[in-house]
Amino acid sequence: MTIGLASPTQLRIAQLAPPFESVPPARYGGTERVIATLTEELVRRGHQVTLFASGDSHTLARLIPTVPQALWHAKPAYPDFAPFWAVILGQVWREIEHFDVVHSHLDYFGFPMARAGIRPIVTTLHGRLDLPQLEPLYAEFTDVPLVSISDAQRRPVPNSNWQATVYHGIDLDQYTFNPSRGRYLAFLGRISSEKGVDTAIRIARCAAMPLKIAARLPLPFSNDANARADRVYYEQEVEPLLEGSGVELIGQVGGKEKDDFLGHAAALLFPIRWPEPFGLVMAEALACGTPVLALCRGSVPEVLRDAVTGFIRDTEDELVEAVTKIGEIDRARCRAEAEQRFSPCVMADAYEQVYARAIEQRSATVELKDQTREDLAWLA
Amino acid sequence: MTIGLASPTQLRIAQLAPPFESVPPARYGGTERVIATLTEELVRRGHQVTLFASGDSHTLARLIPTVPQALWHAKPAYPDFAPFWAVILGQVWREIEHFDVVHSHLDYFGFPMARAGIRPIVTTLHGRLDLPQLEPLYAEFTDVPLVSISDAQRRPVPNSNWQATVYHGIDLDQYTFNPSRGRYLAFLGRISSEKGVDTAIRIARCAAMPLKIAARLPLPFSNDANARADRVYYEQEVEPLLEGSGVELIGQVGGKEKDDFLGHAAALLFPIRWPEPFGLVMAEALACGTPVLALCRGSVPEVLRDAVTGFIRDTEDELVEAVTKIGEIDRARCRAEAEQRFSPCVMADAYEQVYARAIEQRSATVELKDQTREDLAWLA
Repeated sequence: MTIGLASPTQLRIAQLAPPFESVPPARYGGTERVIATLTEELVRRGHQVTLFASGDSHTLARLIPTVPQALWHAKPAYPDFAPFWAVILGQVWREIEHFDVVHSHLDYFGFPMARAGIRPIVTTLHGRLDLPQLEPLYAEFTDVPLVSISDAQRRPVPNSNWQATVYHGIDLDQYTFNPSRGRYLAFLGRISSEKGVDTAIRIARCAAMPLKIAARLPLPFSNDANARADRVYYEQEVEPLLEGSGVELIGQVGGKEKDDFLGHAAALLFPIRWPEPFGLVMAEALACGTPVLALCRGSVPEVLRDAVTGFIRDTEDELVEAVTKIGEIDRARCRAEAEQRFSPCVMADAYEQVYARAIEQRSATVELKDQTREDLAWLA
Repeated sequence: MTIGLASPTQLRIAQLAPPFESVPPARYGGTERVIATLTEELVRRGHQVTLFASGDSHTLARLIPTVPQALWHAKPAYPDFAPFWAVILGQVWREIEHFDVVHSHLDYFGFPMARAGIRPIVTTLHGRLDLPQLEPLYAEFTDVPLVSISDAQRRPVPNSNWQATVYHGIDLDQYTFNPSRGRYLAFLGRISSEKGVDTAIRIARCAAMPLKIAARLPLPFSNDANARADRVYYEQEVEPLLEGSGVELIGQVGGKEKDDFLGHAAALLFPIRWPEPFGLVMAEALACGTPVLALCRGSVPEVLRDAVTGFIRDTEDELVEAVTKIGEIDRARCRAEAEQRFSPCVMADAYEQVYARAIEQRSATVELKDQTREDLAWLA
C-alpha cells in the first residue's frame, strides 16, 4: 500500500491559516505568528509546505492566496467574514490529493472535511473551548484528530481525538536576552476585561512601580458586540485608573519595539480573568529574560514555573506581594526556559510526530476499508 | 457501473434544513416551510427521504435531529450559531453513502462538501446573492450544482453551475379560496425597512382603505445589528405613522389565522425595498384568491402577472392608484395561478428532474475518473 509520501521524512504539508490577518501578522495576531514560525521551520527542514493564507502574507513556503488582502485590513470591509471559511476549504479541496497531511488552523470549520477527507487533516485549536455552543460540536466530532495548545485548553472537551498538546514556538532570534532587570512593569495585550489591564494598574500602583501598557485603544464605534464591550470596559474600568502618575499608555508595539518593551521590563504582568489557552506574550517575555507575574488561569501554570520563571498567584493582592520578589528570579533561567520549551524547533519536532501519526492512522483506516470492500466483494 | 439507486424512480434523498427553526416552522420561517412542503410531497411519491432538521420538527420522512430544539427557540440561547453548520455536515457525512442525492438548504455552508462529496449535493439558495462577501465565494465555487428560487435571485452570480429555477410550492390545502373581495388591505412580513411597512401604511392612507398589519414587533433589546436596525426603523419610521385611524397591528399570524387574514383582504401590499428572492406570502395570498400590489423588485415580476394576479408598479404613488383597480382582478384567476405554478406537485416535479440530472452528472464524473485511473494504471 502506498501512502504517497514525498520521502520518509520529507512531507508535502498544507498549512491553513485564517483569512483575517496576514502570516506573519502586521502586529496583533498570535495564531498567524505561530503559523508563520511553524511554516518557516518546516520549510527549513526540507518539507514541501504550501501555505493557504491571505495574499499579503510573506513566506518561504508556496503561498496560495485565499484572499488578496487580510480581511481585518481589506477596504472596504466585508460586512460578514463567514463565507471565507468555505472559500479556503474549497481551495484546499481542489488540490488535497497533492498533500500528505493538511494542518488546519481554521478552528472547527474544517471538521466536516476532516471527516470526509481522503487525506489526514489535523486541526490545532487556538481558542477557548468552554463555550456552550461548542458542546454539541465536540459531541459530534469525536473522531477528527486535534492538537491543543495547552492541556488546560482541552479540559472542557476531554473526549475528543486529542493527538498532542504542542506549545507555541516563537522566533527566538527576534527576542533579545537582557540580563539586567528593568525598572518598570509591562502589560501587553488587548484592552479587554478578560486581559485584566485594570488589575495590572492596581497592582503596579500598590507595589509603587511604574507601569507601561502596550495596547491599542478600543475603537470608539463598532457594530461588533465584543468591541463595544471592550469600549465600555475601557471607559468605565480603565480610563478612571489612568489619571495620576506612574501609568503610561504607549500604544501598539511590534518587532524591535516589542523586543525593547519586554526586554527592559522588570516583569510582565499577566493578570488574566479568562482561561487563556496559551498566552504567547508570556513566552515572548521569557525569551527576553523577563519573568512573568500571572494569575493562575488557563495555561498559566503550564507556561510558567512558579518561583523559577515568575510567580503564579490566585489573587491581585498576592501578585502585589510577588512584585517585591522579582529580584529572586534568574533572568538567564527565563531565557533558557524559552529556548528549551518554546522554540520553533521544539514545536516543529512535536508537529512532525503528529503528522507522522496522522498519516499512519489514516493509512490504516484506508487499508481497513479497502480490505472490508475486498471481503465483501468475495462474499457477494 | 452502479450508481446505487433504490429504483429508477424511487430515490434515497437527504434534505438538509437549517437548525434555527423547526420543519415546518412554528410561525415565521419561509425556508423551513418550503422544506416541509417538499419533503412531505417527496415522501408521498414514494421516495425514501431523510430529513436532517431540529428535533422539534414533524415529518413523514425519517428525521435525524441535528439539534434537540430549533435554535431560535432553545433556552438558554446559544451566543453563536455558527458551529451548528459543521455539526449538521458532520452528521450527513457519517451516512452519505446511503443517499442517492443530498439536497442542501444550508446556504453556502455545504459547498466544500459538495465539491468533496462522493454523492451529488445540490444546494437550493434561499437568500439574496448581491452581497460583497459572496463575490469571492461564488468565484471559487463555480462547480457546485445550484438551484435558484427565482431568476432574479441568480442575476448577481451568473457564472455558477445553475441547474434550474424552482419556484416555491405551498400546501394549497392550507389556503382557502375566498371568491369575494374583502374591505381591507393586508401587510404580512417582518417589521424591517426592506419589507416596507411604512410604504404600505402611506399607500393605504392615500387610498383611503383600512390596513391590517400582521407582524411581530421588533424586540426592544438585541445584540444583533439587524435586529437593532429593525427596532430603530420601527421607532423612527413606523410608529409615527401608526397614530390615527385605519391602521391596525394584529401581531403574528399562522395557520388558520393567516388563511383568514389573507383570504379576507381586498389585496396584499408588497411594497418591498430589497430584491426579495421569492416572497412566499405572494403565493399564499394568491392561493386565497387575493391579488397582490407590489413594487417591482427581485422576484416580483416572476411571481405575479401584472393586471392578472395583481399590479406591479415602480413607485408608491402608482401603487396608490392601483388600489382603485383591485376590482378588475379575477380572484379565481389568482387561485388558479397558485395551483398551476406554486403547488407542491409542480415544485417536486422540478426537483425530481434536478436530482436525476445531478445523479447522472455525478456518475459521469465518477466514471470518467475511474476510466482515467484505469488508463493511467495501464500506462504505468
